[in-house]
Amino acid sequence: MTAEIVSVGTELLMGQIVDTDAAHLAGVLPEYGVACLRRQTIRDNLSRLTEALKVALERSDIVFTIGGLGPTEDDLTREAIAAAIGQEMVLDERVGERLRKFFASRNLPWLDRQLNQAMRPADASVIENPNGTAPGLICPAGKKYVVALPGPKGEFVPMVEGPIRAWLGSLGTGRVIRSRVVKSCGLGESIVEEMVRELIHAENPTVAPYAHPGEVHLRLTASGATAEDAEALLDPLEMQVQAILGDAVFGGASDTLESVILAQLRIRGEKLAVAESCTGGGLGARITSVAGSSDVFVGGAISYANEVKKAVLGVRAETLDVEGAVSEACAREMAEGACRAFGADWGVSITGVAGPDGGTPQKPVGLVFIGVSGPDGTTVEEQRFRGSRDGIRQRSVQFALIQLWNRLRAKPE
Amino acid sequence: MTAEIVSVGTELLMGQIVDTDAAHLAGVLPEYGVACLRRQTIRDNLSRLTEALKVALERSDIVFTIGGLGPTEDDLTREAIAAAIGQEMVLDERVGERLRKFFASRNLPWLDRQLNQAMRPADASVIENPNGTAPGLICPAGKKYVVALPGPKGEFVPMVEGPIRAWLGSLGTGRVIRSRVVKSCGLGESIVEEMVRELIHAENPTVAPYAHPGEVHLRLTASGATAEDAEALLDPLEMQVQAILGDAVFGGASDTLESVILAQLRIRGEKLAVAESCTGGGLGARITSVAGSSDVFVGGAISYANEVKKAVLGVRAETLDVEGAVSEACAREMAEGACRAFGADWGVSITGVAGPDGGTPQKPVGLVFIGVSGPDGTTVEEQRFRGSRDGIRQRSVQFALIQLWNRLRAKPE
Repeated sequence: MTAEIVSVGTELLMGQIVDTDAAHLAGVLPEYGVACLRRQTIRDNLSRLTEALKVALERSDIVFTIGGLGPTEDDLTREAIAAAIGQEMVLDERVGERLRKFFASRNLPWLDRQLNQAMRPADASVIENPNGTAPGLICPAGKKYVVALPGPKGEFVPMVEGPIRAWLGSLGTGRVIRSRVVKSCGLGESIVEEMVRELIHAENPTVAPYAHPGEVHLRLTASGATAEDAEALLDPLEMQVQAILGDAVFGGASDTLESVILAQLRIRGEKLAVAESCTGGGLGARITSVAGSSDVFVGGAISYANEVKKAVLGVRAETLDVEGAVSEACAREMAEGACRAFGADWGVSITGVAGPDGGTPQKPVGLVFIGVSGPDGTTVEEQRFRGSRDGIRQRSVQFALIQLWNRLRAKPE
Repeated sequence: MTAEIVSVGTELLMGQIVDTDAAHLAGVLPEYGVACLRRQTIRDNLSRLTEALKVALERSDIVFTIGGLGPTEDDLTREAIAAAIGQEMVLDERVGERLRKFFASRNLPWLDRQLNQAMRPADASVIENPNGTAPGLICPAGKKYVVALPGPKGEFVPMVEGPIRAWLGSLGTGRVIRSRVVKSCGLGESIVEEMVRELIHAENPTVAPYAHPGEVHLRLTASGATAEDAEALLDPLEMQVQAILGDAVFGGASDTLESVILAQLRIRGEKLAVAESCTGGGLGARITSVAGSSDVFVGGAISYANEVKKAVLGVRAETLDVEGAVSEACAREMAEGACRAFGADWGVSITGVAGPDGGTPQKPVGLVFIGVSGPDGTTVEEQRFRGSRDGIRQRSVQFALIQLWNRLRAKPE
């Protein structure tokens, strides 16, 4: 069974809103064996929208619309659906009654145009919207459907998670799709793809790589007559992928590099501190994004000025004078100083030139030293990143986590 | 002149990624008098993509593609464009040479498939990509164009903001659109909207409010036959808006709260330090996102553990025992301790319960104390935020910046 998503709204085409609704719905559909073939975004324009719905209905079994259900003149989705499937518009008395009561109960002024929200194509059934005024609609069109959903996130998400999931489950698509994610770090996308090339070309289950800075995630997807059938295809595949990628694998869908690091340190009963220069706190912020990080992470220093590197972390004046703040020696002393100053077993340091200014031929923008000090010694790696200030800072944080993870993995509990 | 945006990638249709790129580009086009008529998202499938590009080219003057330019077999955008506009694919020798050098300079293994990224339709010109391996392409098709842009945000945004803006400016659409932004903090969206209500209903120039956590931005837009005509409409409007919003205005399009704070402190010759608990470094990271922040920002402490609050910031054991770490007194001592420990004129502290666990009836999740210590004393504000851990942490950083800005504004240089 196939679907298309049609998002409606000029504000989406002016870039004023990011369409998180469509991404949310797109993530739900595969769970019910519905393949989302395409997404479109159309202006608040009746003829264009009607035409787009007709085309979408020709090639897909279900067309979801998002937005354009409000009471204003710009809200044309109901009319466009009725025109596309060739049905009369009728007033839904129950919805109309509910709207009147809602406005009366809140002492809001009643405008007759509110009743636009109670109109529907003749055969459509209404989806209650406890979080807003405009209901959703399920509109049968032969053996196909147009499903109209409200745009505001606070109305859209509960409607999808409740009645739409229930409706999708009732369709009996005969195929259930399940997927898992295997996350790896430290290998490039094309290398990972080369390693799992044969699996990528399989039909069911399938393997698809997605690159993130410093990480490659493999999505394993299987379809089956039942959830159990699909899972049974995934079990051996996941083992196979993990065997191929070996050490590079750090977790699954719900894991992050920072969460697996914290879990590993928690098992060992060891504490972590940071010493950040060019990232200014970004590494600490990422580590503490994990709830419950406080039992492992004690804190750290944002040692932006050299005075702070000396006073708080005990970096030697000589190191700063001779080698400079962006140096292997300074990264080493910062990492070791973080352990000492904050009473931690592990200290991670970052010092580099984030740019866009401040680079020299010897120390160009993007040169970053990352130090990891632990019970078995201190390592420092030199990185040369490209990109914007923001990109260099993000990669610095990412590679600091990878370096720490590699150290923890090399000396497992 | 009209445009369509075609985003390419199965991961977008599986809901794994939210398409912020398309929203970004859609926001840029109107500035050049280009109306974005439609957006589409297509799977990594050669025939579907080719067909979609053909249809889009029939009805629009410019078709932008986003994504699918990498080296893997899923990356089919180049081929689809060539097929849609009926041109041969050729190897761009300069791009190929650059790729080989790039891989050699980094000691990365070379795979011949990397050369896929150097292929282009015969008449296409290449857009340099200093932030990644795959260049963009501008492909003329009669009097129309297909423009191919890379998907990763760190490559996409700089390419749009640099060469694509320059190219759009060279098209000569006959109508020039110019806009400015006036940014305010500390007032709610509906209050700002009420204040500028009459201006919002004007035709040209227009005023549109956009709400961000703790900030409302007003976008002023005018169109004219020339850039000068448009700017002449904006000058008096901007003055009017600034007069209406008064003190709440902190800057324009290129300003951020952190950049205006740093500029103000730079004028005064004063230094800034932070002391962060629940935000874990997020405030420092945001301040240091501004290039050149090092002449004002000295650093700070990520005082996640109470031991660090005591040892580094000098928070009294009694305060922690009696009032607790999340308290007005602790925020005050943290802010003052940051000034002392790091030799700064201004210290900003954040301590709170970010959740999702760890809340109590007395100190619920979302309770955050923000302290600002400066030459004229220390103020502490209590905030009660709602939302996710991430949301609470982001709002804490935002309101710490607002509180500091208010202090600086109250005692201007």
